[in-house]
Amino acid sequence: MSLERRHDREFVRTFFTSPTAVEGEDDSAKMIRRAAQLRGMQAPDVWVPDNEDATAPSMRDEGAENIISVISEHGAEFPGEIHPRIVWHRDSPATRYQCFEHLLEIADPERDAIQHIDGFVIPEVGDIDDWKKADEFITIVENEHGLAEGSLAMSVIVESAEAELALADLREEMGKPSNNLERLFLLVDGEVDYTKDMRAITPTGGLPPWEELRHNTSRGASAAGLIAIDGPYDDIRNIEGYHERMTDNQAKGMLGIWSLTPGQVKEANESPLPPKTGSWLLDVNGREVELDAEDGRYVYDGDDVTLETTGDDRYRLLVGGDERELDGDDLTEELLDLTSYIPSLNDIVDSMEEFEAAKEAGKGAIAMERSATLLVDGVEVEISTDRMWDEATYQAAQTPITLFQDVYEHRPDQHEELEELYGEDVVDRAMVVG
Amino acid sequence: MSLERRHDREFVRTFFTSPTAVEGEDDSAKMIRRAAQLRGMQAPDVWVPDNEDATAPSMRDEGAENIISVISEHGAEFPGEIHPRIVWHRDSPATRYQCFEHLLEIADPERDAIQHIDGFVIPEVGDIDDWKKADEFITIVENEHGLAEGSLAMSVIVESAEAELALADLREEMGKPSNNLERLFLLVDGEVDYTKDMRAITPTGGLPPWEELRHNTSRGASAAGLIAIDGPYDDIRNIEGYHERMTDNQAKGMLGIWSLTPGQVKEANESPLPPKTGSWLLDVNGREVELDAEDGRYVYDGDDVTLETTGDDRYRLLVGGDERELDGDDLTEELLDLTSYIPSLNDIVDSMEEFEAAKEAGKGAIAMERSATLLVDGVEVEISTDRMWDEATYQAAQTPITLFQDVYEHRPDQHEELEELYGEDVVDRAMVVG
Amino acid sequence: MSLERRHDREFVRTFFTSPTAVEGEDDSAKMIRRAAQLRGMQAPDVWVPDNEDATAPSMRDEGAENIISVISEHGAEFPGEIHPRIVWHRDSPATRYQCFEHLLEIADPERDAIQHIDGFVIPEVGDIDDWKKADEFITIVENEHGLAEGSLAMSVIVESAEAELALADLREEMGKPSNNLERLFLLVDGEVDYTKDMRAITPTGGLPPWEELRHNTSRGASAAGLIAIDGPYDDIRNIEGYHERMTDNQAKGMLGIWSLTPGQVKEANESPLPPKTGSWLLDVNGREVELDAEDGRYVYDGDDVTLETTGDDRYRLLVGGDERELDGDDLTEELLDLTSYIPSLNDIVDSMEEFEAAKEAGKGAIAMERSATLLVDGVEVEISTDRMWDEATYQAAQTPITLFQDVYEHRPDQHEELEELYGEDVVDRAMVVG
Repeated sequence: MSLERRHDREFVRTFFTSPTAVEGEDDSAKMIRRAAQLRGMQAPDVWVPDNEDATAPSMRDEGAENIISVISEHGAEFPGEIHPRIVWHRDSPATRYQCFEHLLEIADPERDAIQHIDGFVIPEVGDIDDWKKADEFITIVENEHGLAEGSLAMSVIVESAEAELALADLREEMGKPSNNLERLFLLVDGEVDYTKDMRAITPTGGLPPWEELRHNTSRGASAAGLIAIDGPYDDIRNIEGYHERMTDNQAKGMLGIWSLTPGQVKEANESPLPPKTGSWLLDVNGREVELDAEDGRYVYDGDDVTLETTGDDRYRLLVGGDERELDGDDLTEELLDLTSYIPSLNDIVDSMEEFEAAKEAGKGAIAMERSATLLVDGVEVEISTDRMWDEATYQAAQTPITLFQDVYEHRPDQHEELEELYGEDVVDRAMVVG
Repeated sequence: MSLERRHDREFVRTFFTSPTAVEGEDDSAKMIRRAAQLRGMQAPDVWVPDNEDATAPSMRDEGAENIISVISEHGAEFPGEIHPRIVWHRDSPATRYQCFEHLLEIADPERDAIQHIDGFVIPEVGDIDDWKKADEFITIVENEHGLAEGSLAMSVIVESAEAELALADLREEMGKPSNNLERLFLLVDGEVDYTKDMRAITPTGGLPPWEELRHNTSRGASAAGLIAIDGPYDDIRNIEGYHERMTDNQAKGMLGIWSLTPGQVKEANESPLPPKTGSWLLDVNGREVELDAEDGRYVYDGDDVTLETTGDDRYRLLVGGDERELDGDDLTEELLDLTSYIPSLNDIVDSMEEFEAAKEAGKGAIAMERSATLLVDGVEVEISTDRMWDEATYQAAQTPITLFQDVYEHRPDQHEELEELYGEDVVDRAMVVG
Repeated sequence: MSLERRHDREFVRTFFTSPTAVEGEDDSAKMIRRAAQLRGMQAPDVWVPDNEDATAPSMRDEGAENIISVISEHGAEFPGEIHPRIVWHRDSPATRYQCFEHLLEIADPERDAIQHIDGFVIPEVGDIDDWKKADEFITIVENEHGLAEGSLAMSVIVESAEAELALADLREEMGKPSNNLERLFLLVDGEVDYTKDMRAITPTGGLPPWEELRHNTSRGASAAGLIAIDGPYDDIRNIEGYHERMTDNQAKGMLGIWSLTPGQVKEANESPLPPKTGSWLLDVNGREVELDAEDGRYVYDGDDVTLETTGDDRYRLLVGGDERELDGDDLTEELLDLTSYIPSLNDIVDSMEEFEAAKEAGKGAIAMERSATLLVDGVEVEISTDRMWDEATYQAAQTPITLFQDVYEHRPDQHEELEELYGEDVVDRAMVVG
C-alpha cells in the first residue's frame, strides 16, 4: 500500500528560515517578529524560526524564549505552517539533550505557542536510529504536555552521508510500532554541511551540484509519502540562478526550496506554478531561446538561425553551422523538431478538460493539437504538433494542477495575487479540474 | 557467486508493446495479429501484447482472449520471445486479483497459447514484497496448470520510487527458498508513471532524464543477472533523439529499450550492434563531428577549425578561439587529442583476434595501433595512436561481440539482414571470436 | 556516533600501482624496485605493488616473492604507505585460496617485509559477505604470524554492481563483533572491470563517466570513515583530461585517484592542494576563462566579450549574443555575476584566520570582501564582492587545509617542494590555522 500523506499540506514550495535571536539589537527577536507578519506571496508555506545555524550558539536559550513570545503573539494569524528548527547533532549527546530541553520549553501549552506550531525541524541527523532518538524525544514531550501522540510533525535536514543512506530505510521503518516516525513531514537537503561531511572541494569554494543527493532525497520522500525540499541558495542577488536551480529540482520531483529572504520566498512560491502565458522555445545550438510573441506570431530575430526563401516552396535554413535546402514540408518538420512549447496554466486546464471529456465519452487516448505561426528571420512558417494523451500523460500533467489546488486551498492570503496573475476564470476552472 | 543468467537470452535489445484489443475495429485483435507476423529487424527480441496501459480498461477481458487466440495461432512462428503484459498495481488488490484471473486464463494449456509464451510482464510493482505477491500468483498458476515451477519468466516495470528502492534488494531476495524470484528476467523503466509518482514537473511537460533511475535499474540487473530495458520514447518521428537516448543508455549498461512501432524496433535492434564501417570523430568546441571518408582520407571541412601551413614544418591551428603555432609533431599530438575512433564490427573482431593470438603466445598486454590520414582545412596530417590492451580491455571490448553472438544464435530470421549489412566473412569471424 | 577514522592518514591523494614481476627482464622486480625509491611529489601517498592485473597470471608467485624482497630492502625508507594488491575474485574460490597463500607468505615476519606493509588491496570483491571472507583470511594470517588483530589495513577495488551495493552496508557491518572490517581503509573504483560487469558499451570503447558509482563510493567512504579513490586514467599523455577528472572527483568528495606513472603521481599529489596564486575566472558563454594577471589587473582580451564606453558612466556590453547598455553600477553588478575567484592557499588561510578572530570576538558570521580591477576589452572596471562566512562556511572551507596539514605531517619528503611552491610563511600559517 502506498504510504498515505498524513499532513495538511501535500506540497510545500517554500521553507523560510529566520534567526530567533540577534545580538546587539534592542529587540533580539526582531527578525522573527518581522517574518511572522509576512503575508501573501512573500509569506512561505513553511516558516522556520531557526534556533540552530542562523542563531549564534550563545543566543539559543534566548532564541527559544523568543520563539515562544513571537509565536504566541503572531502565530494564530500566520498564513503558513510554523516549524521551528532546534539544535541536534548525531555526534553530540549534549546537543541532543539541549534539543530535548528546548522542546519541553517551547511545547508547554501554558506558554501559548505550541497551539500554533505544526512541528519541529531537526538538523544534523545521522542513521535512521538517530532519527528515532529525536522522534522519541518529541513523543515524550507530547505525552508530558498532554498533546496527542504523533501530533507534532518532524522534518529533518539531510546533511550527512549517513542521513542520505537513511533515506532508503524510511518506508520500512515508518510502519514500526516502536516509533512514531509517521510524524515525518519534510526531507530538507543541507548542502553546505553535506559538502563538509563529504569533504568535497571545488576550486572557487562554491557548492557542488549534488545531483544524486537531491535524487535520493526526492525518491525517499516519494516512497514514504513525504515532501522533498532543497537547501539554501546563498547567492541571494542571483535570481536567475535561483530559478535555474528550482527548475532543475522540479525535474527531480523536489518541488520546494529553502528561502533566505522574503524576496526569495516570493520567487520560490511562484516557481512551481505554471506561467500565466504559454511560450514557444527555439533550440539554437543547444540553447533554448524564448520566442517573442508579436501580433499572434512567435518571432526569432537572433543571428544564430538564418532562413530565406529561395524559390517556390523552397527554403534555405542555416542552424548550428548546418545549411540545408528544404521544401515547405521539410521546413515545417525541421522547425517542429527545434521548437517546444511551455504551456500556461490555462493551457494545462484546457488539455485536462479535453481529456476528461474524451474519457467520459469512452476514449482512452486522444491527440492534443498545438499550433503556432513562427516568424524566423522574416520568413513566416506555420507549425502544428499532435501529442497523444492517455491516462498516464493526463496524470503526469496533473502535478502542477494538484499543487495549485493545494496552494489555493491552504493559502487564502495568496488568493488575491493568484487571481490577479491568472484571472479569476482560470483559477476557478483549475480548482475543479482533475 | 555471481547469479547465473537463467534465461535463453542474455541480451534483449527490443521490448515492443502492442494493444491487445482496440475498440471500434472489425477485428479488435488487429494490432497484435499484425505484430505477431513481424520478422527480421522489424521483429523485437521481446514482444509484449499489452493488456495494460495500451489497452482501454473496458477492453482488457477481451484483450486477454485476443492474446490467447493470436498467440495460439501465430506464437509458434514468432521469432522473438513473447511476454504479455497484464494488469497489476501495488495499491489495488482488485487489480491484482484481475491479474490472477487473466493469468489463470491465458496460461491454461488447453487454450494452446502458453506453449508459446515465455513469461509475463508485471507493471506498477512496489516494494520487493509486492513483487513476491506477483511471483506467488505465477507459481500457483504454474502448479494449477501442470507447468514446471519457475518455468514462466517474470519481468517488471519499475515506475515508482519504492520499486526503484527494491532494485537494491533483488540479489538477496532471489535466493530465498520461499519465493521463485529466480524467474525474474527484465527490469524495465516506465518513466511516464515514474514521473507522476515522483511528482516531477518540467516546463514543457517533457520527461526528465532520470539518470539515477536508469543507473540503479542497470546496476540492479547486473547484480542479479537480469536485463535492463529503458522505457518508451514517445517522440516517434524523432529518430535522432531515439538514437541519442540509446547511446546514453548503453553507456549505463542498459542495452535494451522499449519500442512503440516496428520502425522503432528496427532502430533499436540495430543500435547496440557495432557499425558496418569505422569512423573518425573530431572534437570541435566540445561537439563530436564525424569526418567524411574520402579516398582513404578523413576530411573536416567545417568553419570551426582553421589550419594552415606557415613555413617548413610550421602550422597555425585555430580551434575554439585558441590559436597556436605548432611544428609537425605538436600538430599531430594536438590532433590526436582532438580525434577519436569508432571501431566497426570488423575492427573489434580484428583487435580481439590479435589479442587472443598474443595471449596464446604468452603476452599479457599488447599495443593496438590505429592510424589515419586527416585532411583538415586542406592540410593533410597523418595520425597514429597506440592503445594498450590487457585482459580487462579485451573483456570490456567483448560486450558488443557477446551481444552480437546472442542475437545471431537466437534470431535466425535476422541472419540475412546481418549478413547483408556486415558481409558473411565478418559475421563468421564474429561468431567464433571471444 | 560518527565512525572514527582509524588509520594514520585521513587523506590519500595518490594510489600508485606497479607490476610486481615483469617477464623477459634480467630483474623481474625492476618496476617495483624503481617505484620503491621514488621520493617527494613523485612518490605516492599509497604505493601498491600490484600482483593482480598489472602482472601476468603466470608471474604472480614470483611477484609475491619480489614484493617481499623489494619491500624488505626498501620499505623502511619509503615515504608513503605500502599496500600490495593481491589476487581475489568473488566468483572463484581458487583465486581466493591463492590470495590466502600469498598473504601467508608475504606477511611472514621472518621475511622482513610485513613490518613495512600497512595493508593489502583486495580486488574484485562482491557482496559485503565476500568482503568478510577476505577480512577473515587477513585475521587468520595476523593470528598465525603473531600480528595484532586488525593491524593490517584492507582496501578494496569496487568493480562490480554488487560491490557498489555493498557500499551502503559498510556502516552497519563494520561494527559487528564477528568481523574485523574496521580494518577497511580505501574504497577504490575500478572502472574498466566495472564497465565489463555492467555490460556497458560506448561507441569509441572509452569508459563511461560512471557519475553514480563515484558518488556512491564517496558517500560510502564518508559514512564509514574511509577514503574514496577513483580508478586509473589510462590516457597517460592527457594531463589536462586527468586534471579535469580530478576536479570532478573532488567535487564529489573523492580526493584521491589511481596513478599509473610517477608523472601522474606528481599531478595527483598536487591537484587537491590549493593553488599558489589566486585567479579570476570570467564566464564566457558558459565557458570559464581564466583572466591574465597583468600589473595588478585581471585582463580579458578574447573576442567573445565586447565592452565599450558610450558616454559619461555609460557602457555597452556584449556577451553571448546579448547586447546591453548599462551604467557603471549595473556594469559592475553584471561583471560580478560573470566572474568568480579561485582562492590561493594564502587566501584560504587569510579568510580562516579572519573568521577565527571574529569568532573569538563573539561574532557568528562576517562578510569576507574580495575585490579586483578587471580590464575587459580595454575598459577598466573595479569589482568587489562580499561573501558571508558562518561556522558552516568556515568548516567547509577547511577541507583543503586539513588535507594540506595531513600531507605535511605525514610526508616530510615533500616539505621542501611545498615550501618552494607556497613559501615558508604560508606553509607555517597553514599548519596552525583551523
